[in-house]
Amino acid sequence: QQQPRLSGRPECQIDRITAREPNHYVESEAGVSEYWIPDENDELECAGVQAVRHTINPKGLLLPYYPSTPELAYVVRGQGIQGTVFSGCPETFETPMPSEGGREEFLDRHQKVYRYKEGDVIALPAGSVHWTYNDGDTPIVTITLRDTSNVANQLDRTFRKFFLAGNPLNKQIQHGGRSQQGNGQSGRRQEQPRRGEEQERGRGGSRGGGRREEQGQEGSNIFSGFDDQILQEVFNVEYDTVRQLKGQNDNRGFIVRADNFQVITPEKQEQRSSRGSRRGGANGMEETICSAQLSANLANPSHADVYNPRGGRVSTLNSHKLPVLDLLQLSAERGILYKNAVLSPHYNLNAHSIIYVTSGSSRLQIVRNDGSAVFDDWVREGQLIVVPQNFAVVKKAGEEGCEWVAFKTNDNAITSQLAGRFSYVRALPEEVLMNSYEISREQAKSLKYNRQEGVVFSPRSTSPRESAKNTLLNVLFG
Amino acid sequence: QQQPRLSGRPECQIDRITAREPNHYVESEAGVSEYWIPDENDELECAGVQAVRHTINPKGLLLPYYPSTPELAYVVRGQGIQGTVFSGCPETFETPMPSEGGREEFLDRHQKVYRYKEGDVIALPAGSVHWTYNDGDTPIVTITLRDTSNVANQLDRTFRKFFLAGNPLNKQIQHGGRSQQGNGQSGRRQEQPRRGEEQERGRGGSRGGGRREEQGQEGSNIFSGFDDQILQEVFNVEYDTVRQLKGQNDNRGFIVRADNFQVITPEKQEQRSSRGSRRGGANGMEETICSAQLSANLANPSHADVYNPRGGRVSTLNSHKLPVLDLLQLSAERGILYKNAVLSPHYNLNAHSIIYVTSGSSRLQIVRNDGSAVFDDWVREGQLIVVPQNFAVVKKAGEEGCEWVAFKTNDNAITSQLAGRFSYVRALPEEVLMNSYEISREQAKSLKYNRQEGVVFSPRSTSPRESAKNTLLNVLFG
Amino acid sequence: QQQPRLSGRPECQIDRITAREPNHYVESEAGVSEYWIPDENDELECAGVQAVRHTINPKGLLLPYYPSTPELAYVVRGQGIQGTVFSGCPETFETPMPSEGGREEFLDRHQKVYRYKEGDVIALPAGSVHWTYNDGDTPIVTITLRDTSNVANQLDRTFRKFFLAGNPLNKQIQHGGRSQQGNGQSGRRQEQPRRGEEQERGRGGSRGGGRREEQGQEGSNIFSGFDDQILQEVFNVEYDTVRQLKGQNDNRGFIVRADNFQVITPEKQEQRSSRGSRRGGANGMEETICSAQLSANLANPSHADVYNPRGGRVSTLNSHKLPVLDLLQLSAERGILYKNAVLSPHYNLNAHSIIYVTSGSSRLQIVRNDGSAVFDDWVREGQLIVVPQNFAVVKKAGEEGCEWVAFKTNDNAITSQLAGRFSYVRALPEEVLMNSYEISREQAKSLKYNRQEGVVFSPRSTSPRESAKNTLLNVLFG
Repeated sequence: QQQPRLSGRPECQIDRITAREPNHYVESEAGVSEYWIPDENDELECAGVQAVRHTINPKGLLLPYYPSTPELAYVVRGQGIQGTVFSGCPETFETPMPSEGGREEFLDRHQKVYRYKEGDVIALPAGSVHWTYNDGDTPIVTITLRDTSNVANQLDRTFRKFFLAGNPLNKQIQHGGRSQQGNGQSGRRQEQPRRGEEQERGRGGSRGGGRREEQGQEGSNIFSGFDDQILQEVFNVEYDTVRQLKGQNDNRGFIVRADNFQVITPEKQEQRSSRGSRRGGANGMEETICSAQLSANLANPSHADVYNPRGGRVSTLNSHKLPVLDLLQLSAERGILYKNAVLSPHYNLNAHSIIYVTSGSSRLQIVRNDGSAVFDDWVREGQLIVVPQNFAVVKKAGEEGCEWVAFKTNDNAITSQLAGRFSYVRALPEEVLMNSYEISREQAKSLKYNRQEGVVFSPRSTSPRESAKNTLLNVLFG
Repeated sequence: QQQPRLSGRPECQIDRITAREPNHYVESEAGVSEYWIPDENDELECAGVQAVRHTINPKGLLLPYYPSTPELAYVVRGQGIQGTVFSGCPETFETPMPSEGGREEFLDRHQKVYRYKEGDVIALPAGSVHWTYNDGDTPIVTITLRDTSNVANQLDRTFRKFFLAGNPLNKQIQHGGRSQQGNGQSGRRQEQPRRGEEQERGRGGSRGGGRREEQGQEGSNIFSGFDDQILQEVFNVEYDTVRQLKGQNDNRGFIVRADNFQVITPEKQEQRSSRGSRRGGANGMEETICSAQLSANLANPSHADVYNPRGGRVSTLNSHKLPVLDLLQLSAERGILYKNAVLSPHYNLNAHSIIYVTSGSSRLQIVRNDGSAVFDDWVREGQLIVVPQNFAVVKKAGEEGCEWVAFKTNDNAITSQLAGRFSYVRALPEEVLMNSYEISREQAKSLKYNRQEGVVFSPRSTSPRESAKNTLLNVLFG
Repeated sequence: QQQPRLSGRPECQIDRITAREPNHYVESEAGVSEYWIPDENDELECAGVQAVRHTINPKGLLLPYYPSTPELAYVVRGQGIQGTVFSGCPETFETPMPSEGGREEFLDRHQKVYRYKEGDVIALPAGSVHWTYNDGDTPIVTITLRDTSNVANQLDRTFRKFFLAGNPLNKQIQHGGRSQQGNGQSGRRQEQPRRGEEQERGRGGSRGGGRREEQGQEGSNIFSGFDDQILQEVFNVEYDTVRQLKGQNDNRGFIVRADNFQVITPEKQEQRSSRGSRRGGANGMEETICSAQLSANLANPSHADVYNPRGGRVSTLNSHKLPVLDLLQLSAERGILYKNAVLSPHYNLNAHSIIYVTSGSSRLQIVRNDGSAVFDDWVREGQLIVVPQNFAVVKKAGEEGCEWVAFKTNDNAITSQLAGRFSYVRALPEEVLMNSYEISREQAKSLKYNRQEGVVFSPRSTSPRESAKNTLLNVLFG
C-alpha cells in the first residue's frame, strides 16, 4: 500500500532544476565521501532527499552507524562486504579463527553479512546498524539516496547519522567538490567540480528548513555522550576499552583502513543454501526481517525489464522483486541508452525520480505543468538530477551513450509514457486526438502508430547502412 | 487501512466558516469552469482541498489532462462519456470506423471508456489521464473535489494540472463568479455571484502557502516545453502534427467543441459482460486497475443507506462499495431532506466533509470544540461549505427541501450521531446522563428515547392533518 | 504496517531535554487535571505529543467527551469504570433498575462498559466518546498521552477536546503545577512543582505552532453552540432538559461528583464470557470494533517480557497483544528497575518514547547524533521525559529503585540495544570491532561477551555478601 511522504510543504515553486555535482565532501583515512546537501527550496529539498557518494579504498572499512532515514545505495564500481544488524536477530554466521583451527570455543559469531558487487542495489533500513568493508583490489564507489521525508523519520525532515565508533566529526569539513586525483572516479567526467566543504555533521539537523550550520566540528560517536563509569558498568570492561569505544582521539574519519580483516562470507552458491538455516540462538525471527534479502543486482542484462537491441534497456527493482523495499518505500531503476537513443517522454506517476549518471551523458528536457521547460541541458557522468513527480521528461543519449541509476520515492514507482506503444496516444480514441489537437484522422493515426517501439527508442537512422541494419533488426526482433 | 492526510499544519484556527460561491472562473469554447480556490488559512486551506464546477455544453470535450491529486466528481446534471487512461493497460475497446464497414484494418483501438449520467460519482485517480465528452443534448454540470493534501501528491500541497492538449492558459483568467446566462445552472439560485477571475493556472503552485499568483497567462500543455525536433523524433511524425500537439495558437480553452465525435460505448447491459474480456493486447493487468470500476450511481433511491419516508434519505459511497476509493482515500455521500426535515446533529469522526448543495437550501449550524458556532446560516443551491473533522453540525431543510453531495476525506468516512436512535445518548448509561446534565431519570429517559428516528428526522408536525399523516406513516413504517 | 506521524517539521533542533512537571492544571468538583503542554520547539512539540494526569476522587465522573487525537492512558493508582462509545454499535449491556426488580420495561440499556485497575493501559480512540467513573474508595490517578501528530487528526497538529456535557471552560485555568494537599499523589515526590495555570481550552487550537492563547474562558460543551429550538426539536424534549444539556450554569468542571451512580459491570470472569454475546440491537458489528478489547494490564509480573531477578523487568503492550493499538498507532511499556540496576543503553528505532516515572527515580543520560548528551540528570516520580527517536539512552535506578510507564509513538515500537546479549556488539564480527575501536581481539571479545545479561542489568556487586548472592542467583537462573 502506498505510503505518504512527509513533504509537509505548502508549496514548492520549482522554476529551475540543476544537474548537480556534490557540494560538500569529507576525506577519511581510507576514502572520501561527497554529498549532495539541499539548499533552501531547491528541488532536492522539495523532493525531500539528499545523496552521498562514498569512495572506499581497498581495505577501507566504513564505520558502523545507524541512520534516521532509509538509504538506498547503488554500487557504481568495486565489490565488498556489507553488514546490516537487525536488533534481536540471531548470530547465524560462525567464523573459525584463522590461527586456531577447529576448536569450538574460538569461533566468532555474528549476524549475516553479504557480498555485493558493481551493479547491486543495497537497501539500508532506517535505524539498523550498517557497516561495509572493501576486501577487493579496487576502490568501491557507491551512490546513496537518503530519503529524509520518509515515514520512518518521525522527528523532522533532517537526516541524522548516529555513529557507533570513531570520531567522524574531528575531520575537516569541506564545502564544494574536491579535486580529482585517483579517487576512483572516472576521468571521463566532463566538468571540474568546485572546491568546498562537507556536511556529514549531525547536530540534530544538518539539513532542512534552510538552516545550515557550517561550524560545529565538535561531536563524535554516540558513546562519547555517556559517562565513562556507566559504560564501564554496562559493558563490564576495562577503562582502556571504554576510552577506545568513545574514540575521542581518533583522527581517521569514518572510512578507516583495516589491514587485518578476515571476515568470511559464504560463496555465492553457499549463500543461497545458508538462508533459512537455524544455528545458535535461533529465536523464531529467522523467517522475517532477520533473513530478508537486502540487495539485488540491476546491472545484469538478463534482468532487463525493457529491452530494445537498437536503443538500450531499463531494469527496475521494486518491492515485488526485493520485498524489503516495502519497508523503505523506495525503488530503483537502472537504464542504459546506446548512442543517440531516446528514452520515451514520460512522467513519474507516483514518485520523484532522482537520477545519477554512472557513465556517458544525456540531454534531458524536464517540463512542468504550465508547459515551461525547467531543465534543458546535458547531464553528465557523476551528476545528479531530480525529476519531480508528474513532471514530463525526455532523455536522449549523447555520442557515448548513457548509463544511469534512478532512485524513486515509492516502492512501486510507475512511469506513464507520453509517446510510443504504451503511451496515452494509443489509449485515446482517434476522435479525442483529432479534436484535441485539431488534426485529421490520418495525423491522429500517425501520432498513435508511427512509433512502434515502447519505452526505449532507437536513434534516427542517419545513413543508408544504418537504415538497412535497422530494417534487418526489425525483421529479426520487430 | 487509514491513510493520513498531509495537512502538515501546526494549527488551523477556524473562527468562521463561509458558504462559498466559486471565486474564479474560465470560459472555454464549449463550456465554463468555476473554481473554489482557498485563501490563506480559510477552511478550504485547512481541510487541504479545493473544488471546481465544470459546465460542458453539448458536443463539448474536456481536453485530456492528468492531475497531481486525486479528484472525485459528482454529476449534478447531464450525461456523457468518460475516459481514464491507465498506463500499461491494454486497448480493450475496438471501434469500427463509421464509413468503412467491417474491414479489420480500419478499427480504432483504445482503452475502456464509460458512460456516466446525473447522480454518478466519478473517481479520477491522481496521475492518470482523464478526458470527458458531452454526447447528450443538455449541458453537463459536475462538481469535483481536488484533494491537495492527499498522500498521492508528494511534492507539496498544491494542485497541479498537466494538460496534454490545447493551450488552456491562453484564456482570460477571471476572478469571482460569473453572470448567469444559459450556463446550465438552475435559475433557482438565490444569490448572484460576484464577477471575477480564474485560477486554473499551474506554474508549480497556484495554491498553498497563501501565495496566489494572479498573473501568468503564459504556459500551455506540457508538449510546448519540448523541442520540436525531439517531438518529431519520438512520435516520428511531420512538423505540422508536432505544431498541433503543442497547440500554441489554440484559443479554445480546455473545453472544446467536437462536432465530429463518434466514440462508441457498449450499452449498459453489454458493458457489464465486457468486463473481464481480454481482447488485443491483454497483458495480465485486466483483473487489476485496468478493469477497475471508476464510477457508481448515488442518486437512485434504491441505493439509499438511510431512509425515512417522512424525512428523506442518505446514500454513501465508500471503498466497500467502490474499491478504487481506497486508492483515492476519498468517499462521497448523497443526501436528500424533504421540506423542513432535519439531519441528526452529528460529527465526522475521521474525515472532513465538503458539502455542495445541488438543489434547495438548508440551515446549518456548525459548532467547534469550544462550543461556539462557527457557522449559523443558510446554504443554498450552488454553494459549497466545509465541515471540519469532529466539528458538530446540524442541518435543517428549507421550504423547498434540500439535496446535496458531500465529499469526505477518508475512503470510509464515519459519522457519529449526537441525537436519535444511533447516538451516544442511547449508548450511555442513564446514570451518566443524569449526573452529566444534572437531570432526573425521567429527563435522561426522554433524552435517550424521545427521538426514535435514526439519522433523518421528520419535520415537526404543524397541523392536525400533518399529524394524522405521520401517525399513519408510523403505523405503516414505524 | 507502519503509519507515518505528521511531524511536518522541517527541523527539530533538540539541544536540551528536560524532566518535566506538569505546567498547567484545572481543579474540578471531584478531581484535578494536570497538563504537560508543549512550548514552542521543545521536545514535546518536536515529538508531537502532550500529556495529562487526571486525579479523580471517589464518586468522581469524568464527563463524556470525544478527542481529536488518540489517547493512551496508564492507571497509576485506583480503579474505576470506563465507557467508550462506538457510533453504530449495539447497546449490549442491560442494567436492571435497583428499585424496580425484574420488570422488563425498566431496564436501562447502554454500550459496553468495563472495569480497570492500577497497572492497566487504556486505549482511547480518536473521535469516540469516553467517560470514566471512580466507584472505588481511593482516588484514581491516570497519566494519558495525547498524540497530536497522529494520522487520525486531519485538521492540524492541535489537540481538541469536544465535551458533550458540563461547562468545563467556566473553571479557573491555572498555569504551573499545584500545591500538594491530599490529591492522591504520593508524598514520595522529591520536588515541589511550581504554581501555574491550565490549558484544557480548545478554541480550535490550544497548542501547536507556538501560539498559546491563555485567555478565553468562554466556551462550553458543543451543545451550547446549537439553538435551543433545534435541540428541542431533535431530542424532542422539554426546554428544561435542553438547558441542562447546554450546561451553561454548570460550575463543576469536567470531573463531577456523582453520588447516585449504580452502573453495573459484569464480574471479571463473566466479562470474558459476555464477549461475543448478541443481545438487543445486534447489527453484525459485534465482531469488529464493537467488541474490541480496549485495555490490558501491564503491572502483573507474570506478563513481563524481560525479566532479570537481580535487576528488574519490562513488559510491553503492542498491537500484537492489544490489536486496537493498530488503530491508535501507539504502544506502551511498563518497566521496573531494582535499586541501582541499569537498563541497557539503547535507542528507540521507530518511535519516540515518552516516559513517566510512577515511583522512585532514575538517572538518565540521553545522547543525540553528534555524541553530545542532551540530558544527564535524575528523573523522579511524577516527572515526564521525552526520548526522541534514535537518540541513545541509558537509565540507572536510584536507591529506591524506579518504576515507569513509557508511551511509544508506534504500535510496534522496537528498541535496539547498545550493550548486552542482544546488542550490536554481539552482531558485529570481531574484526569490525577491532578496527572500528582500534582494540585488540581480547578487548573485542570483552566488549561482546563480558555482559551476559540482555536488557536489564543487575547492579554492580558492592559487598562480598552481595557477590555471593549473585553467584547463587547465577547458578539458579543464569
